[in-house]
Amino acid sequence: MNHIKTDILIIGGGPAAMVAAATALEHYPQKQITLVKKDQVALVPCGIPYIFGTTLGSSEKDAMSCGGAVAEKIGIVVDEITAVDIAAKTATARAHDFVFEKLIFATGSIPFVHETLRPALALQNVFTIDKDKAAIDRVVAALEGRARVIVVGTGFIGVEIAEQLRSAHKEVTLIGGRHLLAGSFDADMAQEAEKIMQDLGVHLAMGQHASEVLSEGTLATGVRLCDGSVIEGDAIILATGYQPNTALAAQAGLKLARYGGIWVDEYMRTRNKDIFAIGDCCGRRDFITRDPSKVMLASTSAAEARVAAMSLYGLKHLKGFNGTIAIFSTMIGSRAFGCAGVTEAQAKAQGIEYVSGYFEGMNRHPTTIPGASKQSVKLIALRSSGQIIGGQVIGDREAGEIINIIGLAIEAELTAHHLVSLQVATQPLLTAAPTAYPIVKAAQKILLQR
Amino acid sequence: MNHIKTDILIIGGGPAAMVAAATALEHYPQKQITLVKKDQVALVPCGIPYIFGTTLGSSEKDAMSCGGAVAEKIGIVVDEITAVDIAAKTATARAHDFVFEKLIFATGSIPFVHETLRPALALQNVFTIDKDKAAIDRVVAALEGRARVIVVGTGFIGVEIAEQLRSAHKEVTLIGGRHLLAGSFDADMAQEAEKIMQDLGVHLAMGQHASEVLSEGTLATGVRLCDGSVIEGDAIILATGYQPNTALAAQAGLKLARYGGIWVDEYMRTRNKDIFAIGDCCGRRDFITRDPSKVMLASTSAAEARVAAMSLYGLKHLKGFNGTIAIFSTMIGSRAFGCAGVTEAQAKAQGIEYVSGYFEGMNRHPTTIPGASKQSVKLIALRSSGQIIGGQVIGDREAGEIINIIGLAIEAELTAHHLVSLQVATQPLLTAAPTAYPIVKAAQKILLQR
Repeated sequence: MNHIKTDILIIGGGPAAMVAAATALEHYPQKQITLVKKDQVALVPCGIPYIFGTTLGSSEKDAMSCGGAVAEKIGIVVDEITAVDIAAKTATARAHDFVFEKLIFATGSIPFVHETLRPALALQNVFTIDKDKAAIDRVVAALEGRARVIVVGTGFIGVEIAEQLRSAHKEVTLIGGRHLLAGSFDADMAQEAEKIMQDLGVHLAMGQHASEVLSEGTLATGVRLCDGSVIEGDAIILATGYQPNTALAAQAGLKLARYGGIWVDEYMRTRNKDIFAIGDCCGRRDFITRDPSKVMLASTSAAEARVAAMSLYGLKHLKGFNGTIAIFSTMIGSRAFGCAGVTEAQAKAQGIEYVSGYFEGMNRHPTTIPGASKQSVKLIALRSSGQIIGGQVIGDREAGEIINIIGLAIEAELTAHHLVSLQVATQPLLTAAPTAYPIVKAAQKILLQR
Repeated sequence: MNHIKTDILIIGGGPAAMVAAATALEHYPQKQITLVKKDQVALVPCGIPYIFGTTLGSSEKDAMSCGGAVAEKIGIVVDEITAVDIAAKTATARAHDFVFEKLIFATGSIPFVHETLRPALALQNVFTIDKDKAAIDRVVAALEGRARVIVVGTGFIGVEIAEQLRSAHKEVTLIGGRHLLAGSFDADMAQEAEKIMQDLGVHLAMGQHASEVLSEGTLATGVRLCDGSVIEGDAIILATGYQPNTALAAQAGLKLARYGGIWVDEYMRTRNKDIFAIGDCCGRRDFITRDPSKVMLASTSAAEARVAAMSLYGLKHLKGFNGTIAIFSTMIGSRAFGCAGVTEAQAKAQGIEYVSGYFEGMNRHPTTIPGASKQSVKLIALRSSGQIIGGQVIGDREAGEIINIIGLAIEAELTAHHLVSLQVATQPLLTAAPTAYPIVKAAQKILLQR
């Protein structure tokens, strides 16, 4: 048993843990920082779908950088912590034990599978997508020679994996809810995603859920849908979400929030001000609706990690983490999709009185610029004040940053009044025309309805 | 003479005029709107450099869309207004006269040439870049068969035209100040632009100005620089800036601001609340320094046009135009450059106590994603409060939207505290890593210095 005394102990090896370590090092260079992670090599979580297609093609190419300069200045221990004593400020791992001043849980999330499907995980060819290199390598190996893959779940991971498997010439069926990415996009925006997936040759079984995995011996043979129909396949991937990985925290007696995450305040502190939790393992709230949120996002985790690490020894910056704005982007075929805040469907469900503005234009100007393509933006605002509470964008790759403009507007609680005369850099080769910049035009449509 | 009685008269055919017409139509659909422009076909101003290279290749491809549905609902008159009587609310053109209720000047700008070089404009092969199709066509025709082109001026137009002429295999020398784009970028960021231009084969004569155009008969043969050296060329383009086109407004008795633009308040009204001025012809102030500004930008013009058109019959939205944030982007070779607010050099010159934060990373994650390239962001903030007052970015095409995130932060008067825990959408194929998003990292470097 190795005994380690440290000032700051971080449990986890994902983005939240790495950002917390780097930020703590910058703000408290005199403190000893120790990070304990289970695996030598951590994967970039959002890169995992691209291991299954031609984009990366192997888990080696999805290894997370160990942060070079940061890694040299902190202690990194590869081990698994099995118990934490919060009162005594100690933690025990298989080959080490630790005494700490401050502790940050960044234990991430694990796949969620509905109990009706859970028994199927014992079959040889039914998989979840763990954020773990060995597990991913097993799935990749198992998919070799299996031509027909069924993906259950139409969130980002399900859609991205289905799209990537198709790019690797698999026969792919994607099973899911009302429409693709229904938690993040309204149906009017998602229909472009569905069209692209169909054009790529992915079979969509929408408005469905998998009620049963069919099997012969130890092999799954297909999935029975809720309408009774059967889809046959050689492998099944259950991409039905994730849940906070909080066994260790619960065993240590920390309070859990609804949906099972570790309860934290706006500075990511548990009820004990020396114990923090960040990333997918902590309980989240929605920035707009204030409801508990199931959103899991590496960039949300990174923001939480920065807040926590700056607040370890007192509140340096009075800017806590005030809830997730659920800001996502992805690429389907050659089109980028971005979303932030609430959708119209969510606003309706919450009883929010809103107006929305939609604009479709081109991403270059004049539109004769080679490579110009369509770009569309939807903004959602409170009817009363015009405050921006949501946005969705579809376009070429730059849409991945356009959604971040909308996200900043949401986080800064700006209104359509601010956006209608927004000053933006416009350039023929880079953006829409100044006369038709999509965020400005969508904001104007909101003002005209108020 | 045709007599036209109208509610709203707009003079101009550029982006400011078109946006004002479209916005007025949306907000005052019951009003008669008449737009008077000199030329049937207007060019997209920022597209003009691309006429000189392979990107567009002809002025026909740079025609501004006449706005379809808008054009059908407003009166468009092709004529030149020669006099305005503000007291009588009348205007006279060559073949029309007008009676109006509200008047918007959007008469744009014309090339500025220093008086020492002005006589050279009489030579057959010395040109300015007018925003006028016939004039541009004459330059394009004259450049045919002239191999060596000298471009004087290293602002955006000079740099873009030099880069485009080079793409069309001209021998190009670019003459200018301390460094490329010195009004918008600090030297540390501009050096990447200079390297790209040199790699493209453009000759740079920096730290210079053209003291004399040399000629034989009616043909220029070269330029003498301020250090006495001579650059020979077959054609010379003077891209030495623009000045407000205000002859008509001055003759009508409107007050002019410093630098010659029409004086306006934050709602773009002249001292007469029925007379507005927008776009390059109006006097501008800098959002940060509050000094008069020479910045001319189609997107600034569009923002002003929206404010003016919404305020024609009273103040509908209490959000005036509060000065230009000087937000530009361009592309040099395969790299995008964006800037907003003040540079470090400008901050120093103004006596602003500032701190800057710089971060260089990659625009994809993991960085093994095909096509990943470098991305760098500099943020400039007030030392006292951390308020963001400037930013510069270099990267792939998405940098054209990243600068708009920084611009929004400047316009919304956000601080580095807001940006350090910014929630951003990050995605392997679209953005930097959540652990290394460049705006967040640059903001963090600012906080660490305060």
